[in-house]
Amino acid sequence: MRDALVAAAFRLFLERGYEQTTVDDIVALAGVGRRSFFRYFPSKEDVVFPDHERCLADMTAFLAASDAEAEPVRRVCDAARLVLRMYAENPSFSVQRYRLTKRVPGLRAYELSVVWRYERALAEYLRGRFAGRPDGNLRADVIAAAVVAAHNNALRSWLRSDGQGDASATVDHALAYVQSAFGAPPAAPSAPAPALATSPTPTTAPSTTGERPGERPEDVVVVVCRRGVPLWRVVQEVETALGRE
Amino acid sequence: MRDALVAAAFRLFLERGYEQTTVDDIVALAGVGRRSFFRYFPSKEDVVFPDHERCLADMTAFLAASDAEAEPVRRVCDAARLVLRMYAENPSFSVQRYRLTKRVPGLRAYELSVVWRYERALAEYLRGRFAGRPDGNLRADVIAAAVVAAHNNALRSWLRSDGQGDASATVDHALAYVQSAFGAPPAAPSAPAPALATSPTPTTAPSTTGERPGERPEDVVVVVCRRGVPLWRVVQEVETALGRE
Repeated sequence: MRDALVAAAFRLFLERGYEQTTVDDIVALAGVGRRSFFRYFPSKEDVVFPDHERCLADMTAFLAASDAEAEPVRRVCDAARLVLRMYAENPSFSVQRYRLTKRVPGLRAYELSVVWRYERALAEYLRGRFAGRPDGNLRADVIAAAVVAAHNNALRSWLRSDGQGDASATVDHALAYVQSAFGAPPAAPSAPAPALATSPTPTTAPSTTGERPGERPEDVVVVVCRRGVPLWRVVQEVETALGRE
Repeated sequence: MRDALVAAAFRLFLERGYEQTTVDDIVALAGVGRRSFFRYFPSKEDVVFPDHERCLADMTAFLAASDAEAEPVRRVCDAARLVLRMYAENPSFSVQRYRLTKRVPGLRAYELSVVWRYERALAEYLRGRFAGRPDGNLRADVIAAAVVAAHNNALRSWLRSDGQGDASATVDHALAYVQSAFGAPPAAPSAPAPALATSPTPTTAPSTTGERPGERPEDVVVVVCRRGVPLWRVVQEVETALGRE
């Protein structure tokens, strides 16, 4: 019945317009009563985004089940991929909804509030992982926002192409950019890393030249790498050598 | 009259609650007619955020007036500081509004839409600056989101402290984190860079050891730095050595 209500609603939204369609119109077409509608959807906006609550719950559960050793930036990128998967499950529905949302200010506002809830779910997880570290909350908020922006940039470009092309590859590419900016290497499926395949790994040689042994803050770090090594890989080596996470 | 309407509205919002206050109540207290209210504010929400339209216009003008040589990430950080300045002009009003907004879902939704417009203004400027570069739009969207998240993290912590402390310094610190992540050094006023004051600058020694001269892609880059040098400074040196922006 839930699917029938969504199908009826979208047929009417596309035929008559969103504002011109009432809940009564939707239930009449679906052949059910008003109470059935409100059992599934708190409001007319919610029928446009029928799967976000489930996806938010999945994301929260996915993050809560994270291994304590999981690299946090990679983990939130994987969590963001759950949203993409939801859109990619039904490309034609997602494209229709994208077009509808662009035209209706009320739906855009609703979507902003949903995006904000995803962003907070990612940020809360990162705040936990960065707890006690300098600027932990700041880093968590910034990285969560960057992940959401990258995901949505890729998602929108896929929706604008009418759901053609490889949505996963587009999102992987966008998330790899965020991972490179925040020091974590791209996840394996999104990182063929061609430059590394033909170049040696950067080598790092911490030394204490000219310093008394044990004076870590004064240590000299030498990083040797070849041109062509991806910047994130170099930064990762520098960070490791400097003893930062 | 505009200020009188805002003052009357806030007095009633705090005394009776936002939802329980009507536009009629506000105009009665301010001693003006309904038409005067709607001349200044399209809706009751707008009286809560009376300066955002002006600030958005200031931000757009500021970005449009940018020097073509301006470092783009630094420029959008400076644009974000215009929002902070608006909040810091009137700390007690900003703190009252923050408390009110936290309690009223409709105002939170309104605020999300305003934040989205600031983010789009920053992203549009960056898209122009990055036009024609690989992933230009992606980078623009991600950096704009990161700047807004850093700004808002700092702004909220200042508002939670009841507007005590140095809001500018808090925001400068947050924006410096974004600038370090995206490769641009922090702007001068926000970068006392204490580590650099006591440590030598990283030195970079490009060499062609073991390679035929002129084979740039195979060149070896050696970066020497001391522990304690800020990571963004190291990354900047590596980027320069690798010939990337």
